[in-house]
Amino acid sequence: MIIVMKHHTTTEEIDAVVRHIESLGFKAHLSQGEERTIIGVIGDERPVEPELFELLDGVERVMRILHPFKLASRDFHPDDSVVKINGVSVGTSQVIIMAGPCAVESREQLMETAAAVKQAGGHILRGGAFKPRTSPYAFQGLGLKGLELLREARDAHQLPIITEVMSPHEVTLVAQYADILQIGARNMQNFALLHAVGEIQKPVMLKRGMMSTVEELLMAAEYVLSHGNSRVMLCERGIRTFETATRNTFDINAIPVLKSLTHLPVIADPSHGTGKWELVTPIARAAIAAGADGVIVEVHCDPAHALSDGAQSLKPDKFAVMVTEVRRIAEAMKRTV
Amino acid sequence: MIIVMKHHTTTEEIDAVVRHIESLGFKAHLSQGEERTIIGVIGDERPVEPELFELLDGVERVMRILHPFKLASRDFHPDDSVVKINGVSVGTSQVIIMAGPCAVESREQLMETAAAVKQAGGHILRGGAFKPRTSPYAFQGLGLKGLELLREARDAHQLPIITEVMSPHEVTLVAQYADILQIGARNMQNFALLHAVGEIQKPVMLKRGMMSTVEELLMAAEYVLSHGNSRVMLCERGIRTFETATRNTFDINAIPVLKSLTHLPVIADPSHGTGKWELVTPIARAAIAAGADGVIVEVHCDPAHALSDGAQSLKPDKFAVMVTEVRRIAEAMKRTV
Amino acid sequence: MIIVMKHHTTTEEIDAVVRHIESLGFKAHLSQGEERTIIGVIGDERPVEPELFELLDGVERVMRILHPFKLASRDFHPDDSVVKINGVSVGTSQVIIMAGPCAVESREQLMETAAAVKQAGGHILRGGAFKPRTSPYAFQGLGLKGLELLREARDAHQLPIITEVMSPHEVTLVAQYADILQIGARNMQNFALLHAVGEIQKPVMLKRGMMSTVEELLMAAEYVLSHGNSRVMLCERGIRTFETATRNTFDINAIPVLKSLTHLPVIADPSHGTGKWELVTPIARAAIAAGADGVIVEVHCDPAHALSDGAQSLKPDKFAVMVTEVRRIAEAMKRTV
Amino acid sequence: MIIVMKHHTTTEEIDAVVRHIESLGFKAHLSQGEERTIIGVIGDERPVEPELFELLDGVERVMRILHPFKLASRDFHPDDSVVKINGVSVGTSQVIIMAGPCAVESREQLMETAAAVKQAGGHILRGGAFKPRTSPYAFQGLGLKGLELLREARDAHQLPIITEVMSPHEVTLVAQYADILQIGARNMQNFALLHAVGEIQKPVMLKRGMMSTVEELLMAAEYVLSHGNSRVMLCERGIRTFETATRNTFDINAIPVLKSLTHLPVIADPSHGTGKWELVTPIARAAIAAGADGVIVEVHCDPAHALSDGAQSLKPDKFAVMVTEVRRIAEAMKRTV
Repeated sequence: MIIVMKHHTTTEEIDAVVRHIESLGFKAHLSQGEERTIIGVIGDERPVEPELFELLDGVERVMRILHPFKLASRDFHPDDSVVKINGVSVGTSQVIIMAGPCAVESREQLMETAAAVKQAGGHILRGGAFKPRTSPYAFQGLGLKGLELLREARDAHQLPIITEVMSPHEVTLVAQYADILQIGARNMQNFALLHAVGEIQKPVMLKRGMMSTVEELLMAAEYVLSHGNSRVMLCERGIRTFETATRNTFDINAIPVLKSLTHLPVIADPSHGTGKWELVTPIARAAIAAGADGVIVEVHCDPAHALSDGAQSLKPDKFAVMVTEVRRIAEAMKRTV
Repeated sequence: MIIVMKHHTTTEEIDAVVRHIESLGFKAHLSQGEERTIIGVIGDERPVEPELFELLDGVERVMRILHPFKLASRDFHPDDSVVKINGVSVGTSQVIIMAGPCAVESREQLMETAAAVKQAGGHILRGGAFKPRTSPYAFQGLGLKGLELLREARDAHQLPIITEVMSPHEVTLVAQYADILQIGARNMQNFALLHAVGEIQKPVMLKRGMMSTVEELLMAAEYVLSHGNSRVMLCERGIRTFETATRNTFDINAIPVLKSLTHLPVIADPSHGTGKWELVTPIARAAIAAGADGVIVEVHCDPAHALSDGAQSLKPDKFAVMVTEVRRIAEAMKRTV
Repeated sequence: MIIVMKHHTTTEEIDAVVRHIESLGFKAHLSQGEERTIIGVIGDERPVEPELFELLDGVERVMRILHPFKLASRDFHPDDSVVKINGVSVGTSQVIIMAGPCAVESREQLMETAAAVKQAGGHILRGGAFKPRTSPYAFQGLGLKGLELLREARDAHQLPIITEVMSPHEVTLVAQYADILQIGARNMQNFALLHAVGEIQKPVMLKRGMMSTVEELLMAAEYVLSHGNSRVMLCERGIRTFETATRNTFDINAIPVLKSLTHLPVIADPSHGTGKWELVTPIARAAIAAGADGVIVEVHCDPAHALSDGAQSLKPDKFAVMVTEVRRIAEAMKRTV
Repeated sequence: MIIVMKHHTTTEEIDAVVRHIESLGFKAHLSQGEERTIIGVIGDERPVEPELFELLDGVERVMRILHPFKLASRDFHPDDSVVKINGVSVGTSQVIIMAGPCAVESREQLMETAAAVKQAGGHILRGGAFKPRTSPYAFQGLGLKGLELLREARDAHQLPIITEVMSPHEVTLVAQYADILQIGARNMQNFALLHAVGEIQKPVMLKRGMMSTVEELLMAAEYVLSHGNSRVMLCERGIRTFETATRNTFDINAIPVLKSLTHLPVIADPSHGTGKWELVTPIARAAIAAGADGVIVEVHCDPAHALSDGAQSLKPDKFAVMVTEVRRIAEAMKRTV
């Protein structure tokens, strides 16, 4: 940590900051510039909030030196992590495609979609049983019944399944049915939930909050990792910006940034990242071209009657085109699908 | 809802949209403009996602007409709601001051701060027992022990208490100790939690998410209200923007906007809204001048040793100055403190 | 335009709005919903500010129906525009690569970079003579001398040149030297400048402002087009968001959105869109995979001594790798480089 | 400047960075932490771009220590600057009110509004003669005729006038008529224009760009100050965020932040900061409560027929109420109006 003192600062103020640093078990290191005195804090700064020092008299600003995450960092784990899920490996040269309806609505809807996903070359089936909805008046998901249907589709089509868990006390239940637990964007900083999925042994896909920085996403992963679960995948799904032409702004930069900061696999969600089905395929292609390890997309046999997220769902024929186009890009990147 | 058709659209496409509208139980109303055909959807559009129509061939854009919230709206409840909490009323001409430490750290710390809050004229004591922390390595709160200390401080100083609840299964426990349950900004769209606090009979203060719109805040309130709990207060605590000079950007506009859209009381949190103690008093004054019904601020007897949020905490003497200055502004607004 | 009236509105208020609509030469069209009365404004709404109606008693909200741009829209010009510049065509199946230093610093620097651009397969040479700099203490560009050097490099290497013009009274001068006039992001809404470049007959590349919407970018293009200059290219160069891991957030969604709304060619600037040289190649690949018609990147023979934007400049060898990788992606898109 | 080296870095890389620092005339200062080596750059870093060092092998990140502005900073000018304009002083204990129409439309409109401004207690008359408009199809202002009308209103009502200048070559002309030159938000980084107004001797009011940080606003002021014009006022007018309930988000935090960083007077523009006339008075009160030195608001005798910005204009009677309410807040702040 680096503490920058104000322009006119007294020896007493500097001494007080040094004593405070030492009282926390760190060493202080002074450097006198032309206009500012700078005090370095030597030691592992991670458990300390830099803001604390801003309160001391004479302090202008405090800056972190280290990334606040450790287990998620390439610093201590330079090689790519591979997450294995019942025969599918995420984080290798193969690009993984996860697809399915936003919400499980009925056996017929799910089975038909699962067949289409399998046929087009998808690897993992997605589908929501517990749905976070902005409106209390909207469809909230089939719950347990939805989990059972997912299991049935999984077995019928030999597709591992990913589904969202929304509450700590449902983690055990959902883990009995799902191959991958998804933490939704709105729960990325639901720390009780992160703690709970950190304590079970199921792969977790953590979606970036629409208001969260890359660093905060990595800190959320750190929560899961630090509670003992090492099978974590990250998912870029668009952030909120001033632009209203699309529902979210897909942060394509985050893909190479994450690949450089962390060893965890990075998945792209162009359905939520755009909010419009016409944009899903171009952004899926772009994400793979930027280095993503896979995509997760919404597919629905009758999107106009979907109970949620219809507008961003691909019909099966358009999904098959997407897989073909993504494959061409993957090959240009010397990867497979 | 208004559906705007694309520039060159066919009669078949228009007919299909009309049939779809009617299949959902609405009436359709056509209007032929010079460049676009517009179709109005007549009926209560709230349970329907406008995006659904965007999938139909020939549709360019869909726009809502009604606010998606109903119970929170002034449309059906024109008068201000007053939330009563053990002798304190929020939403009247009296401006309410809630204050206390970010986190309960020890009996001594809490008692000393509570005494200072009471003496300076504060009405409600705040303090966190369960703390949502960005880093898994940071102090996570005293939990149950913290709740017991809050109760002790409450009884010793005759100050109702507000504290955060983070998980649905802790709602009953926290409700046994607290006078007001706080839903934190990161949990504003934790729908399982909103559902849970909607089912008990304790006042709730709902903090706006740092990247949530005013409309989404009102939809979160609608969750609580629609599950039967009518004692809801809203809290503006700053949003995330591109500006890095402050931790958040306090959205002062949101105060008069909320007061015009909803009958629920509106509280301002200038501590989180700025992230810097020097800015807390000016922004507290501004919030009252803009029409807020109260403020919630962090006070700590020794902020430099606070276990969280020290940088935005006022020392007791500065808090007393804040109360005096806020009172002067309240009087200029023909209100009291 | 659609005018939504408030919940409780009187016949007098509705009549007054209708009279106001008619006084402006439009027709009004009433539609009575269950909770709101809606008034359609029939006619070309483009010259009218929707906000005007918000002032009338009883009006809740006003929504546009038409895009405010016309000449830039695909509605009236469905086919792609091709911009021809001395033998290079932008907007065809060939992906165009523009490259060169941020600022022209010296003959040696420019010639060496131009040779590298040509050799690696670049089509157009970029370089700034007039530089917009955030700090008055930073290098402001070589001005006329820079234009002369660009001309020299152009003739030596047979590369058309693009350079920025910052002020209306410099348009004629810059147009004597440049093949393409660039309008920088900070000047995207410098209307005097847009007017000036609209009146000459040189291709213009208009960079999106870092906090401008796609619609505002198209309105800026409309300024140039409406003054008579039809050779306009658009450039996505990253927008400003809350994320600080990169200098800007490259808005990859904007590429397919623009391609669908407008017939004008779309160029991507991954150098400014990321601010870090390591990210330039992945984002260049992504932009082409999303459908961009070309890229513009900063190349410098000695970036660590560059007088501006060194951090986002590629060295010649890395630029050659980028061209190769972009070519592979272009081929996967059935295009050439 | 502080340079943070990557986790695994070699002695050669560190040496190369040190040599680079010394080649630029600075001294280097090494500090070896547990996980990172840090190199301090000693000297006036203002003319150097920190990004330059990010290119060197082994460098992870570079952080500035000094604010990049100097003349605008309180470091070197601790006392408040007072800007004097024909008998009106901005930056004293008197709160200044600037008001008038967005655009000058006709003699009658301007004279009537000016009389209302004067009568209600306004100090300075605003009005646009050259108008920056998002659409080329919208009213662009009366130009010279508008300046003449402003001059006439000024003399008739003894109100100094403020009007916008949009282009460097119009600075001399506008300065002949205006008492204060306004630089609009869209031109805040039009460096040619900043340069031009820096060279004349007229007070300048610089509006913050909707996409600009507080630091960038101060750098724009530094442009004007460094070219010799010391009479600069700053204006907070709202920034662009994800919130769409208001046209802009008025950044109330910026007011105390600016007052602490700079000696220049700070004016608030609640008309543009909200975009809705109902919000103008609450935000004007809030701005004064936060410490602003004045407000600038749009007043129009017939806003529904205004040629621009009608929706955010106050009618004369509502303006008179605003002045009364702002006066009450000013008095609570121990200031006058």
